[in-house]
Amino acid sequence: MTVAMTGAEALIGTLTGAGVDVCFTNPGTSEMHFVQAMDRVPAMRAILAVFEGVATGAADGYARITGRPAAVLLHLGPGLANGLANLHNARRAGSPLLCLVGAHATGHVRFDAPLQSDIEAAARTVSGWVHTSGTTRGLAGDAARAVAATAGGGGQIATLVIPADLSWETGGQPAAPYPAPPLPPASPGAVDAAAATLAAGPAPLLFLGRNALTERGLRAASRIAVASGARLLAETFPARMEGGAGLPAVARLPYLPEAADQALAGTGPLILAGARAPVTFFGYPGRGGDLVPDGAVVTELAGRGQDAASALEELAGRVAPGAEPQATPPGVPDITPGPLNPVNLANVIATELPANAIIADEAATSGFGLPQALAGARRHTLLALTGGSIGQGLPVAVGAAVAAPDRPVLAIEADGSSLYTIQALWTMAREKLNVTTVLVNNAAYAVLRIELARTGAGAAGPRAARLLDLSDPVTDFTRISEGFGVPARRATTAEELTEALRWSQSEPGPHLIEAIVPPVA
Amino acid sequence: MTVAMTGAEALIGTLTGAGVDVCFTNPGTSEMHFVQAMDRVPAMRAILAVFEGVATGAADGYARITGRPAAVLLHLGPGLANGLANLHNARRAGSPLLCLVGAHATGHVRFDAPLQSDIEAAARTVSGWVHTSGTTRGLAGDAARAVAATAGGGGQIATLVIPADLSWETGGQPAAPYPAPPLPPASPGAVDAAAATLAAGPAPLLFLGRNALTERGLRAASRIAVASGARLLAETFPARMEGGAGLPAVARLPYLPEAADQALAGTGPLILAGARAPVTFFGYPGRGGDLVPDGAVVTELAGRGQDAASALEELAGRVAPGAEPQATPPGVPDITPGPLNPVNLANVIATELPANAIIADEAATSGFGLPQALAGARRHTLLALTGGSIGQGLPVAVGAAVAAPDRPVLAIEADGSSLYTIQALWTMAREKLNVTTVLVNNAAYAVLRIELARTGAGAAGPRAARLLDLSDPVTDFTRISEGFGVPARRATTAEELTEALRWSQSEPGPHLIEAIVPPVA
Repeated sequence: MTVAMTGAEALIGTLTGAGVDVCFTNPGTSEMHFVQAMDRVPAMRAILAVFEGVATGAADGYARITGRPAAVLLHLGPGLANGLANLHNARRAGSPLLCLVGAHATGHVRFDAPLQSDIEAAARTVSGWVHTSGTTRGLAGDAARAVAATAGGGGQIATLVIPADLSWETGGQPAAPYPAPPLPPASPGAVDAAAATLAAGPAPLLFLGRNALTERGLRAASRIAVASGARLLAETFPARMEGGAGLPAVARLPYLPEAADQALAGTGPLILAGARAPVTFFGYPGRGGDLVPDGAVVTELAGRGQDAASALEELAGRVAPGAEPQATPPGVPDITPGPLNPVNLANVIATELPANAIIADEAATSGFGLPQALAGARRHTLLALTGGSIGQGLPVAVGAAVAAPDRPVLAIEADGSSLYTIQALWTMAREKLNVTTVLVNNAAYAVLRIELARTGAGAAGPRAARLLDLSDPVTDFTRISEGFGVPARRATTAEELTEALRWSQSEPGPHLIEAIVPPVA
Repeated sequence: MTVAMTGAEALIGTLTGAGVDVCFTNPGTSEMHFVQAMDRVPAMRAILAVFEGVATGAADGYARITGRPAAVLLHLGPGLANGLANLHNARRAGSPLLCLVGAHATGHVRFDAPLQSDIEAAARTVSGWVHTSGTTRGLAGDAARAVAATAGGGGQIATLVIPADLSWETGGQPAAPYPAPPLPPASPGAVDAAAATLAAGPAPLLFLGRNALTERGLRAASRIAVASGARLLAETFPARMEGGAGLPAVARLPYLPEAADQALAGTGPLILAGARAPVTFFGYPGRGGDLVPDGAVVTELAGRGQDAASALEELAGRVAPGAEPQATPPGVPDITPGPLNPVNLANVIATELPANAIIADEAATSGFGLPQALAGARRHTLLALTGGSIGQGLPVAVGAAVAAPDRPVLAIEADGSSLYTIQALWTMAREKLNVTTVLVNNAAYAVLRIELARTGAGAAGPRAARLLDLSDPVTDFTRISEGFGVPARRATTAEELTEALRWSQSEPGPHLIEAIVPPVA
């Protein structure tokens, strides 16, 4: 005879059986049976966030580092709503992510109680798979299907909506996991077509994204480049990209359209490997959004949901059998001492970067010096802002630190971006995560100053300028960080930043360094 | 000949012409033409929030105080997503609210650029009216219709999605406002039916919500109660309720189901005035969600979208022609000196409450002493958490302070709740708003401790308990407040709280008082 098991216990048992053993959560009353079940299924590690956007962004960061889904557990429609923006970023990253949303008990829905809303409709805007469970007996099976669904399309969000009574009633039974489907290979003939395109030339360009930016993918791409003369370019905001000395240095497509045009100018055939054809981030008056140069023919070696790294290796075997990948020599540009600016900031960070670090980059305008500085720095993994919804950097850093407790995590943040999910600092303190946040404070939405000029909206009047200004009041991030339990220091010069970074690495746990950098003129 | 006007300029001119002259915003690139147009249409006051949930909650607070819609201007789907939870609360409050969401330029949508998502689908979960504009020429007319739509159903959210090119192109022309529709009267025969119900008895109860909780509504309800012996009860979480000495004291239905059962026990006929029949907030094992006592017949005098105050006045004229409303005498319970607890906290607040204050109450478990303490305090307006999505108190206080710059605003907040939208403090500092936040820090999700026990989930094990605990680390709200530019003090005793409240009223602008109160055992 088996002990009666609640739906919540069966569900958590199913998840841990399927390898989903981390749950980022901000629970409420409808999730209390999950909370209670945490003590019965100790294999599940639950991590509390004090705002849902931290939980969803953390699950994204966890997935980018491990390749496996974490769960998030959210409280009804409003809890999901607070997590949506970072689910949007996770969707754009192609991260496998299991989103569990507690709902009112089945019999309670008809009362339209205050927290009632259309959870499925909101979930569909970010999820590849959405289902509302109907019975306690079926809940665990639904969970097993949901975990399997996170692998769909190369990685996606699966949302399971769970009426509270299904969790609290007994009659659950853990369900067996589905085998994880492998990343689909490139389409038949794609390698042949890419090889022919490379041979035909002139001036081919390999545009890399997703797992083409793993070490394996980058080395294969580099061999192809060496042998064929093709140029390499990575997508602007990769979900994950390996970098540093010893690896081939691959530049990322610039964010600003004019710079992107320049980077792509002269391209003959454009071969896509794990990336889509490049487009501008926004539409602008008087120019199109398609960045593919006129006349360039686009060939897809591997799509975003396909195994681009293996396709590149196969292509390299075909067109570059003897070629060796280029290896970037170690070295960081010299540091100009004195007041911080985006260039010496980047060079200090690159110089002090600990080995094997994970960098969550959301520095926006203040981070423009980073790619050049980091190219020859110690080996690292870069996580970028995939979906354009700022407020992703600190939560992703949380998830990365949970995923890789033995790797130092560096979050390079902008003041404006950090404020959307500043509550992530609390979880860093609670979980004693090895995250150092370098928060670049320029007291402005500096990127919007650039965009205002670019959109042809004309010079900003005083009222418009005030809407892009964050200097009244200037936020004191050192105090805020200490308020959340994360030790903090301020740095205004390259020397102070060097010292502060060494301080942050001298002891375990989270630290924040507020780097005061004047805005780009 | 007229000067060429952009769509954005025509739209803002249309809004100010229709009386919508406050816009809470967190803009992005697709909204830059609105930002730029702010200098051309100076009648529009734009107020910056550093997180969208602050903007939407502020617009809700503004509507609750003025009865008129403010606009919010949000950046694409993710910006809307960050504002959704407080839009949910605004929807439950019946607040008129104009939600403007910038979208990618028409020609850019097909590229599925990183920020692209289904804006309309997300908007529909909270809005009564959703439309995506198609042409620059039609944009201003769409805006005029949207403003009119905010009055629908007694107050609702109208969302207008605005492709960026419609804003930046010229050819706009401001559109004339639609006349604002009045609040619909009660249904024909409803007053007769209610009068007959009162006469038939026994033990009738008037359940009050929406504008039945205005001074007018409360006085009429009190006259009815005096003449007929009917009991009065207000909904648990009213959008706006007048209170204090000189007004009839009307208790609110308790939140916990057992206490609500008790409050409703013995009710004969139940007459609804601006409220729906009472239901529990959540479903629980072993009990139903319907709070109407067995055998009680429910009669609707006026629905939530109808003019309940006028219906009550008409009913009072019928059944209580000579009766006077009861007036609560002034007086506040004595303050027990020493360490703060929910009772002396409430009594200090009630004693120090400045005249004509607006109270945004999101104190959760720490606020249970407030209703009794405030009944005989100085006249005030209470704004409650209508939709159950915590993180509403500080933003609503921002909007209330903008709406009524001559009234002091008191936000009574819980630690857990405040953290969802703590960024509201920045806007309070920026706009120098007369908001005093009393932030009750008990270092726990105390309400969930109660709910965990109530849901029958059993005793919390150590891992479950940790998910409801906010004491590791304890958040230092005094520091966080100062970091956002709001002067702050800590109070641990009744005497210190008295002193701090006097300090907060001794100078204009925002203040925060961190009240250290141990959790309810």
